Amino acid sequence: LVNLLELYLDPPDLLDALLRLPEEARRRIYRVLSHSSLARIMLLADEATAQEIAGSLDPDHLARALAALEPDETVDVLQKLPEKLRRQLLGRLPEPLREEAQRLLRYPPDTAGGVMTTSVPVLRADDTVQRALQELRSGEHDVRDTVVVVDSQGRLLGLVTVDQLLRAGPGERLGSLALKPRATVEPEADREEAARIMLRYDISRLPVVDQEGRFLGLITIEDMAGVLTEEAAEDIALLGGVEAPKERYLKARVLDLFRRRILWLLMIFLVESVTANIIKGYEDVIRRIALLAAFIPLVMDTGGNVGSQASSMIVRALALGEISEKSRHDIVYVLLKEVATAALIGAAMSAVGFVFALLLSGGEVKLSLVVALTLFIVIMMADVIGASLPILARRLGIDPATLSSPLLTTITDIGVTVIYMGLASYLILGR
Amino acid sequence: LVNLLELYLDPPDLLDALLRLPEEARRRIYRVLSHSSLARIMLLADEATAQEIAGSLDPDHLARALAALEPDETVDVLQKLPEKLRRQLLGRLPEPLREEAQRLLRYPPDTAGGVMTTSVPVLRADDTVQRALQELRSGEHDVRDTVVVVDSQGRLLGLVTVDQLLRAGPGERLGSLALKPRATVEPEADREEAARIMLRYDISRLPVVDQEGRFLGLITIEDMAGVLTEEAAEDIALLGGVEAPKERYLKARVLDLFRRRILWLLMIFLVESVTANIIKGYEDVIRRIALLAAFIPLVMDTGGNVGSQASSMIVRALALGEISEKSRHDIVYVLLKEVATAALIGAAMSAVGFVFALLLSGGEVKLSLVVALTLFIVIMMADVIGASLPILARRLGIDPATLSSPLLTTITDIGVTVIYMGLASYLILGR
Ligand SMILES: [Mg+2]
Ligand SMILES: [Mg+2]
Ligand SMILES: [Mg+2]
Ligand SMILES: [Mg+2]
Ligand SMILES: [Mg+2]
Ligand SMILES: [Mg+2]
Ligand SMILES: [Mg+2]
Ligand SMILES: [Mg+2]
Ligand SMILES: [Mg+2]
Ligand SMILES: [Mg+2]
Ligand SMILES: [Mg+2]
Ligand SMILES: [Mg+2]
Ligand SMILES: [Mg+2]
Repeated sequence: LVNLLELYLDPPDLLDALLRLPEEARRRIYRVLSHSSLARIMLLADEATAQEIAGSLDPDHLARALAALEPDETVDVLQKLPEKLRRQLLGRLPEPLREEAQRLLRYPPDTAGGVMTTSVPVLRADDTVQRALQELRSGEHDVRDTVVVVDSQGRLLGLVTVDQLLRAGPGERLGSLALKPRATVEPEADREEAARIMLRYDISRLPVVDQEGRFLGLITIEDMAGVLTEEAAEDIALLGGVEAPKERYLKARVLDLFRRRILWLLMIFLVESVTANIIKGYEDVIRRIALLAAFIPLVMDTGGNVGSQASSMIVRALALGEISEKSRHDIVYVLLKEVATAALIGAAMSAVGFVFALLLSGGEVKLSLVVALTLFIVIMMADVIGASLPILARRLGIDPATLSSPLLTTITDIGVTVIYMGLASYLILGR
Repeated sequence: LVNLLELYLDPPDLLDALLRLPEEARRRIYRVLSHSSLARIMLLADEATAQEIAGSLDPDHLARALAALEPDETVDVLQKLPEKLRRQLLGRLPEPLREEAQRLLRYPPDTAGGVMTTSVPVLRADDTVQRALQELRSGEHDVRDTVVVVDSQGRLLGLVTVDQLLRAGPGERLGSLALKPRATVEPEADREEAARIMLRYDISRLPVVDQEGRFLGLITIEDMAGVLTEEAAEDIALLGGVEAPKERYLKARVLDLFRRRILWLLMIFLVESVTANIIKGYEDVIRRIALLAAFIPLVMDTGGNVGSQASSMIVRALALGEISEKSRHDIVYVLLKEVATAALIGAAMSAVGFVFALLLSGGEVKLSLVVALTLFIVIMMADVIGASLPILARRLGIDPATLSSPLLTTITDIGVTVIYMGLASYLILGR
């Protein structure tokens, strides 16, 4: 039965099916899966599932399964497992693979080194086209449409694509065909930086080289497409105020979900308690003008929303490379544009707010002025802060997505409260 | 000078440099750029810039430039231009390109047909390996590592990769080598659906076929990587409550930025005016217990944040394919998990809220109970709504990202106000 499952289901479908079974059933199936299915599934699985699989099998079996993968994939799986098991498994890997895995383990998963593949045909400048075609023909490498040409010290000279090889004569030397790549990255570079370069210059094979220019591996656009989706999912989680989970949603335990969210909520509670304290300071103002309370959600939300609009526009523009946090021209331009836009939005919203407050309060001009004026100031402030923070974050080397809108809006709330209550107290009660 | 620019700058760098010049200077440069640079730049440019370029040149010049691109790229550029100009240019394109462009123009940019390339070697089952290698050698196609095999009616039989060709004998027939693809899509499918399939099954060339199984084109993972980034950027904008812009940030006019944001803010203002009305209804309650106002931002924000946490987790899980909106098992599981998590979060936050309210109010037990109880109910409600909406959206065929957290939190605000003011009035004043 299990072999039928393997035959008819692709690894991602098999994994999905397994995750819908009770744990005991899953564990029994892990033990009878073929090495290659097992390895593929561990590669696709989240950390929790990979560890569950590892815990169901003996290390020898596991090591044999891992040997069915490309070295960079073996390392991706090892990086999901606890330190101790990882060392056990490393010791059991067959020799050329073990050494390579040890080398690749040095690069964290979110670096260029962590996403490159080393399963690439590497040849010398005086090797022939025929030799390169033979190498591609072997079908042993992950990359099958490009050969890498290096010198005797292993330094990268260039790349040759298979269609170049097909056009050339069989005796031609690779040195005369190799094209210098338009870009390279070092292994420590952030994988998002590598992604930006590949997308910007439409590069499908990006070489990773060390400081001496020695070739270490290639990042393929196939692998990068998966990375981009993971990074986008991480950003969506962060923007919503949740730490990006390491396991699949369906596998996550309720206590873990709780832990991942509560810290953030407590932090926001702490900031918002400042707001509560400020409002308490105006207790008697509110007692005298109870209607003030009715507009609190309105002015706060408008501030928060304007701020998150501005920041999401700038996060987006930064992500697409439309603006650069390093360009003084861009920063000045962003600020000028945002001030102008915010002034327009502020004018429109405070006009609407004034009329609405007048209607709701039955003609209280001063109260309505306070609402209108607060809206204008709050919109200007929230917009400029919302637009500046992502740029500042990038300059400090922080992921702009971590400045999620919940945090931003909560901070704006304090400012909004001070302005609103202060203006009310001053303009209406004259103190 | 301009030719030096072209020589030393890649098209994306050239475009960036141009966009930092005054408009008059840009327009003069457009006129002297080579056809191929011009075409590349229009392909990379946003709609506004593409139209600016088109407006600076006469249609004949423009049509010759567009002919330098692959047909699918020509169409991508045409789709950025206004209807009238598009027809003018179509009429000026050389013949095989014109017909193909007309065919491709039928597919909107966000469909599978809109992202496929037709510049692919297509051969018959009885063609030989030698013939296929010749075709690849020509270097005329966008796809250079795969040939497509079709029958006499143009129906897709399978794909053959270049390393298969290299291993096979020159006289072998393609029919015996062709592998049936693991998946195909129809041209009308959403391009995000195509992306999900490619990522899930690690497919780098996905065939697009019509209902009769006739081959129409291939979606390459290179092109899809760019699409994924655009889609993620669109989601970030939507989640922040801004319609995703069609032009680059630096090119967008202030009035357009204003227009894109004001509608959304007014909508939220409208919803929030309901909140204001509800609070006004409790004006005398607030006059008697002015401290109630101090907790309004606290309870509202907690509700909003819990809701956006829940929805961002589910949007993320849906985007990664970890859960499916179609699986009843998954939906039940999500709801059970969220109810359990929300109960834990609710218990923790209402305990904290109770203590805080007790401290701030100087020992008002009833008021503190109102705050605690409101927090608990609000957290349960916001979490379940936040988790359900993205699933519901998917089932209705709406992009879950459009249910952005600003909208969600504003709707929660109404519920929060009713619960908070209602409980306060009932528990403290007994009415
Ligand atoms: Mg890795
Ligand atoms: Mg790989
Ligand atoms: Mg791969
Ligand atoms: Mg990120
Ligand atoms: Mg990252
Ligand atoms: Mg807030
Ligand atoms: Mg297109
Ligand atoms: Mg293309
Ligand atoms: Mg391309
Ligand atoms: Mg989308
Ligand atoms: Mg879309
Ligand atoms: Mg809020
Ligand atoms: Mg709100």
